[in-house]
Amino acid sequence: MIPRTVAKVSLLCACVLGGGLAAERPAPKAKSFTEILASSQPSDWRPLDPDNTLYLELASGRVVIELAPTFAPRHAANLKTLVREKYFDGLAFVRSQDNYVVQWADPVEVGGRSLGTAAASLPPEFTTPWTPNLPFTRLADRDGYAPQVGFSQGFPVGRDPKRKEVWLTHCYGAVGVARDSDPTSGSGSSLYVVTGHAPRHLDRNFCVIGRVVLGMEKLSVLPRGTGALGFYEKPEQRTPILALRLASGVAPGERTELEVLRTDTKTWTALVEARRNRRDDWYKVPAGYIELGNLPIPVRPTPK
Amino acid sequence: MIPRTVAKVSLLCACVLGGGLAAERPAPKAKSFTEILASSQPSDWRPLDPDNTLYLELASGRVVIELAPTFAPRHAANLKTLVREKYFDGLAFVRSQDNYVVQWADPVEVGGRSLGTAAASLPPEFTTPWTPNLPFTRLADRDGYAPQVGFSQGFPVGRDPKRKEVWLTHCYGAVGVARDSDPTSGSGSSLYVVTGHAPRHLDRNFCVIGRVVLGMEKLSVLPRGTGALGFYEKPEQRTPILALRLASGVAPGERTELEVLRTDTKTWTALVEARRNRRDDWYKVPAGYIELGNLPIPVRPTPK
Repeated sequence: MIPRTVAKVSLLCACVLGGGLAAERPAPKAKSFTEILASSQPSDWRPLDPDNTLYLELASGRVVIELAPTFAPRHAANLKTLVREKYFDGLAFVRSQDNYVVQWADPVEVGGRSLGTAAASLPPEFTTPWTPNLPFTRLADRDGYAPQVGFSQGFPVGRDPKRKEVWLTHCYGAVGVARDSDPTSGSGSSLYVVTGHAPRHLDRNFCVIGRVVLGMEKLSVLPRGTGALGFYEKPEQRTPILALRLASGVAPGERTELEVLRTDTKTWTALVEARRNRRDDWYKVPAGYIELGNLPIPVRPTPK
Repeated sequence: MIPRTVAKVSLLCACVLGGGLAAERPAPKAKSFTEILASSQPSDWRPLDPDNTLYLELASGRVVIELAPTFAPRHAANLKTLVREKYFDGLAFVRSQDNYVVQWADPVEVGGRSLGTAAASLPPEFTTPWTPNLPFTRLADRDGYAPQVGFSQGFPVGRDPKRKEVWLTHCYGAVGVARDSDPTSGSGSSLYVVTGHAPRHLDRNFCVIGRVVLGMEKLSVLPRGTGALGFYEKPEQRTPILALRLASGVAPGERTELEVLRTDTKTWTALVEARRNRRDDWYKVPAGYIELGNLPIPVRPTPK
């Protein structure tokens, strides 16, 4: 909602992390997003797996990334090798292109830092075979970029039943593997994060390896680079990466304990409907539709 | 594209303003976006009308907004009154919500600055009647939020032939009128700009009054507010508005002379197709689809 005055905000319910569009008053007929979330059960939430959670440490704070090894097993394994060997520590964001992506890499580039025991190139994992044991909560709403879209293991995915393929989609916060035009040239040594309107045309063309679950606001404000494609033209414009760590390699007391709402629950389905047709007083015309890119997944600190 | 290395960028063609996804090599079969744009004719471009162009002056520079009075005549007129009477000078951005909007207003709010001779409330202009003399370049691709979408007078619009209505859509850079839950409560004294994935559910619920044609990168990086809905909690976090001016009220030598690509031309249609099916070497699977929100309209400095 877009209230006219700041004073109005004191009337608003606080938004949970990852929510962001609260209702000013309880809806008369249907529960609002905020109400549905408030009545969620502990079983609606899942903890992040420390072995598949990355902490990207910046001067501005920590960004938390959830890896999706199911959808990019080789790239996830290679990335974990790079992380364990501290490949990224001291590298930097080299690019910020408005309404598109930020990207980090070895600024020295060709002939730069050794990849250690990690592979320098990998077979592409732009899609992965669909198997019936993969969970899939299909979104009823028609999508332009994929025959079907929905959620699998908490990630927004596309699915092609004919080709029996599934893939992670380039929604806001998606983390992908940069590469050259050779599809085998990606290794995970340079990654990007979607900071703009979902560039879904990248789906099935680049390997998405996970998504940012906390701290997007630290990446989305990185000053835009003035070079071609938003690359920075001067080294001092780059934002340094202090460290990139696996959560399981961080002492338990120093971890960011988070829970993510499960996308295979009735609560999630109700939240999707609350976004598809917003019925609080602010909305005069319910959309009757929700796009995959307009469904951020709620995240919260793990209750004590 | 997401090249792995900075070194690769030197091979890339420079992108025009508002473009952003160049092709590394000429496509073997179809012209690339960059090539089509490079072969555009002077008649493919239109100048901005100084009477419907706003300059938002910030410490970081100028943001250029094109107003769309056809789609919100009363709000545009009221906003121009506010601008002429310098209502906005010295106000500030009061809100920046990640992946959603930035918003400016009178931070003092209720009981704050006088609106002068401008109206404090207006009848809603969330949609406008469709008339056959309005240009409409329809996008062939199916849209979830509107029966039809396309471009009219250079703006992305939705259209409902049955209800005979047309409306400006909430794509990246859209400028809208904040209001309270009362639909007549908007006046233009508080405006917002879309800085995230297009919140198309706002279409037909808020009055869109124009769009940012230059300088989005100055708004999209505003630090996110930590209060509810991204409002700033401390006055010093706000970004001041030095001035908001109509271009026609600025001396010719101090104007930002720009041309916008016409959306009723064969060149535009060809650019849309180049984005719908990217055929350069970077893409292994052409999407076969383009979403309204993924079609930024090229802008360039007026050739001398």
